[in-house]
Amino acid sequence: MLLGRVVGTVVASRKEATLEGLKFLVIRQIDVDESDTSGYVVAADAVGAGVGEVVMYATGSSARQTVYTRDRPCDAVVMAIVDTWEVGGDVKYVK
Amino acid sequence: MLLGRVVGTVVASRKEATLEGLKFLVIRQIDVDESDTSGYVVAADAVGAGVGEVVMYATGSSARQTVYTRDRPCDAVVMAIVDTWEVGGDVKYVK
Amino acid sequence: MLLGRVVGTVVASRKEATLEGLKFLVIRQIDVDESDTSGYVVAADAVGAGVGEVVMYATGSSARQTVYTRDRPCDAVVMAIVDTWEVGGDVKYVK
Amino acid sequence: MLLGRVVGTVVASRKEATLEGLKFLVIRQIDVDESDTSGYVVAADAVGAGVGEVVMYATGSSARQTVYTRDRPCDAVVMAIVDTWEVGGDVKYVK
Amino acid sequence: MLLGRVVGTVVASRKEATLEGLKFLVIRQIDVDESDTSGYVVAADAVGAGVGEVVMYATGSSARQTVYTRDRPCDAVVMAIVDTWEVGGDVKYVK
Repeated sequence: MLLGRVVGTVVASRKEATLEGLKFLVIRQIDVDESDTSGYVVAADAVGAGVGEVVMYATGSSARQTVYTRDRPCDAVVMAIVDTWEVGGDVKYVK
Repeated sequence: MLLGRVVGTVVASRKEATLEGLKFLVIRQIDVDESDTSGYVVAADAVGAGVGEVVMYATGSSARQTVYTRDRPCDAVVMAIVDTWEVGGDVKYVK
Repeated sequence: MLLGRVVGTVVASRKEATLEGLKFLVIRQIDVDESDTSGYVVAADAVGAGVGEVVMYATGSSARQTVYTRDRPCDAVVMAIVDTWEVGGDVKYVK
Repeated sequence: MLLGRVVGTVVASRKEATLEGLKFLVIRQIDVDESDTSGYVVAADAVGAGVGEVVMYATGSSARQTVYTRDRPCDAVVMAIVDTWEVGGDVKYVK
Repeated sequence: MLLGRVVGTVVASRKEATLEGLKFLVIRQIDVDESDTSGYVVAADAVGAGVGEVVMYATGSSARQTVYTRDRPCDAVVMAIVDTWEVGGDVKYVK
């Protein structure tokens, strides 16, 4: 998994039928010091994450292991909202 | 998923038999500010996307989760045509 | 999928038993303007491609969705020989 | 698999239900000379690894092949704690 | 698949139970001119490869398609020992 910040949303009315009802979030990948990277991904939301929240997302076939995404053409999912993480004994982020 | 712009098409008459009938689109990956990146992919079309449209595409095994691509040697699929997205409260793209 | 040019072949007599009979091609990844990139991959051949031909190849689990590669430890397959592609209305390649 | 050093932990109380009980480790990818790289991943722990330990981790669908991660939206897992490795006849690391 | 040179071994006594008995090789990825790249991977051995040999390795779910790796948390496998390859009509490597 990678850490990311929810920075936006995507709306797509014409889509593969099984994707109906999924919410698509624009995620900016962040580093372990909470700084933005240049990477982004559009991920389906499995946990009710909102813009501004720091999350973990999974990619590939693992992104389909939720009730919202199973058997759907979806390769990235937000599977957790992060409360806190620490690195080297230092708290790097608190929600 | 990533955002991309349909920039062209590929024709291949000699191909694995199960791919018959699939339409192959050349997708230029774009960033969340709608600028082109250097990345491209050839993706199967599952939504009737046309050249010039902005789309979302999924890769890997998730690209096989559509009626058009199931069980086929296809690792990228256009699964949605984008209407709009916003980042940081700003609308970045409207179809 | 990505576009590539078949530039060579690999011979390996000692290999996992299920790979017997597969032909391994060295593929130079090319860009949509037909220029070489620095990337390469060794792919199994599912379409009878020869050295010099421009092809499409699929990677990951999708590479196992052919009669030649199913259930085998093979993560890249040539699944089509390209006739032509166009980008931005310009024909970029004709076989 | 890649080599990594466990540098921290992530806490996420709101998460996909099947992830309950999993421990999430922040892994800094290291090179074969034991130097840090700029890459990191958050991986589930399948072996009881602690901060400071050098581990191997697997990604993608292979990360779900443990009793802790099966059928869960998890794309990286620590599957071994490294005792030692050698490269070119030189021992590069001993626990 | 990619070409690599076996440059070392990893020993890990504490690991996911199903990995017992697998041999882990450190593989330096090489280019088609046989030069080293900066990339490496730790791969399970499915063909009895030794240090110094040039091999092909598969990654992702394809790495689990051998009797040694099936259903195990292993994302890279050496599936062939290379005898020779040629590029552009020139033999680039002979065992």
